[in-house]
Amino acid sequence: MANDTLEGNRLSAIPRQHLSHAGLVRAVEGTLADFLASQIASLDTIDPALGGFARTARDLVLAGGKRLRPTFAFWGWRGVAGPAASPEALLPALGALELMHTFALVHDDLMDGSATRRGRPTAHKVFEARHGTRFGSSAAVLVGDLCLVWADQLLARTPVPATTLLEVRTRYDRMRIEAIAGQYLDVLGETDPSAWSVDRALLVARHKTASYTVHWPLDYGLALAGVDDPEVAEAYRVYGATVGEAFQLRDDLLGVYGDPAVTGKPASDDLRTGKPTALLMLARRLATPAQLSELDGASLERKAQVVAETGAPARVEEMIRVRVTEGLTALASAPIDPEARAALIELATTATQRPA
Amino acid sequence: MANDTLEGNRLSAIPRQHLSHAGLVRAVEGTLADFLASQIASLDTIDPALGGFARTARDLVLAGGKRLRPTFAFWGWRGVAGPAASPEALLPALGALELMHTFALVHDDLMDGSATRRGRPTAHKVFEARHGTRFGSSAAVLVGDLCLVWADQLLARTPVPATTLLEVRTRYDRMRIEAIAGQYLDVLGETDPSAWSVDRALLVARHKTASYTVHWPLDYGLALAGVDDPEVAEAYRVYGATVGEAFQLRDDLLGVYGDPAVTGKPASDDLRTGKPTALLMLARRLATPAQLSELDGASLERKAQVVAETGAPARVEEMIRVRVTEGLTALASAPIDPEARAALIELATTATQRPA
Repeated sequence: MANDTLEGNRLSAIPRQHLSHAGLVRAVEGTLADFLASQIASLDTIDPALGGFARTARDLVLAGGKRLRPTFAFWGWRGVAGPAASPEALLPALGALELMHTFALVHDDLMDGSATRRGRPTAHKVFEARHGTRFGSSAAVLVGDLCLVWADQLLARTPVPATTLLEVRTRYDRMRIEAIAGQYLDVLGETDPSAWSVDRALLVARHKTASYTVHWPLDYGLALAGVDDPEVAEAYRVYGATVGEAFQLRDDLLGVYGDPAVTGKPASDDLRTGKPTALLMLARRLATPAQLSELDGASLERKAQVVAETGAPARVEEMIRVRVTEGLTALASAPIDPEARAALIELATTATQRPA
Repeated sequence: MANDTLEGNRLSAIPRQHLSHAGLVRAVEGTLADFLASQIASLDTIDPALGGFARTARDLVLAGGKRLRPTFAFWGWRGVAGPAASPEALLPALGALELMHTFALVHDDLMDGSATRRGRPTAHKVFEARHGTRFGSSAAVLVGDLCLVWADQLLARTPVPATTLLEVRTRYDRMRIEAIAGQYLDVLGETDPSAWSVDRALLVARHKTASYTVHWPLDYGLALAGVDDPEVAEAYRVYGATVGEAFQLRDDLLGVYGDPAVTGKPASDDLRTGKPTALLMLARRLATPAQLSELDGASLERKAQVVAETGAPARVEEMIRVRVTEGLTALASAPIDPEARAALIELATTATQRPA
C-alpha cells in the first residue's frame, strides 16, 4: 500500500464526536504508514536490499486485520479520559501495538507453517518465493524482529510525560511476555496433543489471547490516560479475562468450521496442524471410543464432522456465552464514560460472534 | 548455572580503583542472574513448562562469552564520567545489552544451522533434543524473542533520570536495527555468494559488527553518563567503525582458521555454510581459475588451504592493522579519561588479535 493513499486521513481531520471504528483504524494506519515510510527511506540509503526487506514488513503491517489491540487500548483510554480529550497524542502508542502484533503473527505463522494470512501469503512464504525455503524462514524471523524493534521506536514517539510512558511500557512488557509465553505453550502442546487437556488449552487462551489481546491493551490505554484508578483497572481485568477467553474460543470454532473465504486461512487449519485447542480437547473428552479413533485417523472433513457429533461445539458456544455475560456484568458497574462502555459492550459481541 | 553461585559478586563489593574486566563481567552477570531468577519464578507460577523454558533462556545468557557490548558501554560511560563516579546504577543497562545479544545469537544460530556456541549446544539443538526439529526451531525463535523483551524490562530498571533513559533508548534502538539489518544482508548473501562482493561483505561488517558491537554500545555508555559531547561522540564513532570492522575481519579469519577447541565452533564453519565474508570474497577475487574451481568443489580442508594460497588472509591481516591504527588515532586526541583511553586501546588489540 503506497504511503500517499493514507495521507490526509489523520484523526485530527475527523470531527471528534463522530469518531467511528473505521476512523480510528484509518488514523492508526496513517500513523503507521508515515512511520514506516521514514524507516524504509533510512534503510534504503544503506542498501536497496534492506529497503526491499523493510517494504515487505510494511506490506504485512498494512495488510489489514481487525486492529483489535489498538481498538481496545483506545477505549481503555477513552473510558477514563472522557469525550473531550483529543486522541491525537495516542496514535503512536496505538500503532506500536499493531507493529508488535505483526511481529507475533509473522513468528507464529512460521511456527505453525501457515501459508496464508488475511488471504495473502505469509511472510515466510513471500521470502521463500524469492530465495527458497531456508531463506524464507530466516527472513521471516528477521522481519518479525524488525517489527518488534519498530514498535518500540514508535512507542517512544508518543507525546506524553516520560513518567506516563514508563507506566505504559510496564503494561507493554507484560503484554509481550504473555504473548510469548502463551505461544510457547501452544507450540509445546502440539508436540504431544494426547498429553494436553481442556484446562491447559484454556490456560493458553488466557495468556495468549485474553491477556495479550484484551486485558493488557485496555490497561495500556488506562496508563496512557495517566490515570491510576483501581476500580476501573479491575473491571478491565475481568472484562479482558472473560471476553478474551471467549474470543479465543470463537477462534477455536473458526479454526475448524470457519469459511476460508472469510477467515483468509485454509479450512480446518487447526485439525491439520493438530493444535490442541479447548474445542478439540473437549471433543476428545466427550468422544466415544469409535469417535476417538476417527479423530486420530479420519480425513480432515470427517474429523470436523466427528467433533460436531461429540457435542463439543455446542458446549463451547455455551462457554462463550457465560464468559461474555460475566465480562459485561463487570463493565456495567465500572465508573467509566458511557460511550466507552457502549463501545466495549459492542466489541465483546462482535469479537466473540465474528465470522472471521 | 545456579543463581547462588553468582551472589555476593556485586560491583559495590569491589574496591572501585581496582575494577578489573573480570570484576565488571561478574557484576553484570550477577545483575543478570538476579533478574533472571525473578523472571523464572514468575513464569513458574503460570506453568512449570514456562519455568523450564525460561531456565533454558537463562542458561544461554549465563553461558559465558566475551561480554564485549557491556564492556564497551562501560568504558564509553567511564570515558566521560571519570574515575570517581559509581558504576552501580549502570548495571541493569549493561545487563540489557547482554540479554539483547543472546536474542541475536539464538536467532543467528538458528538461521546459520549452527550446532554449537561457546562449546555447548545452541538453543534450537537444546529444544530439538526434547521434542524434535520443528519444536527446536519454534522454541528457539521464542527464546530469542523472550530475551529481547527481557532486555527491555531490565533496561527500564536502570536508575537514571527518565530523560537520560530516553536518550539511551534512542541508541539502543539504532543498535538493534543495525543488528537485524546486518543479519538480513548476511542471510541474503548466503543465498547467492557468487553475486556478493568484498564491498558488500564490508558493508555487512560495518552494520552487523562495527555499529552493533562497538559504536552503539560506546555511544549508549556516553548517553548513560547524561553527557552530550560531540567531540567524544565523534571519536567513539570513528573508533567503533574501524575497530569494529577489524573485529569482524578477525572473525572472518577465525571462521576458517580458528581452533574449534578455542572458538567453540566447528572448524571451517564459514566454508561449510558458504558465508560470503570479506576474506572469502577477497580470496575469490585474487584466485586463479584453477584455485576458483577448487574453492567451489574441493573438501573443506583443501578450500581453507586454497584461501591461504590466494594471499587473502595476509591482506585481511593488513586491513585489520590499518583499521586499528585509524581507530587508535581518533582515540588519542579525544577528551576522555586516561584510564578509559588505556582500556579502549587494550580492547582494540584484544578484540582484533584474539584466538576466539
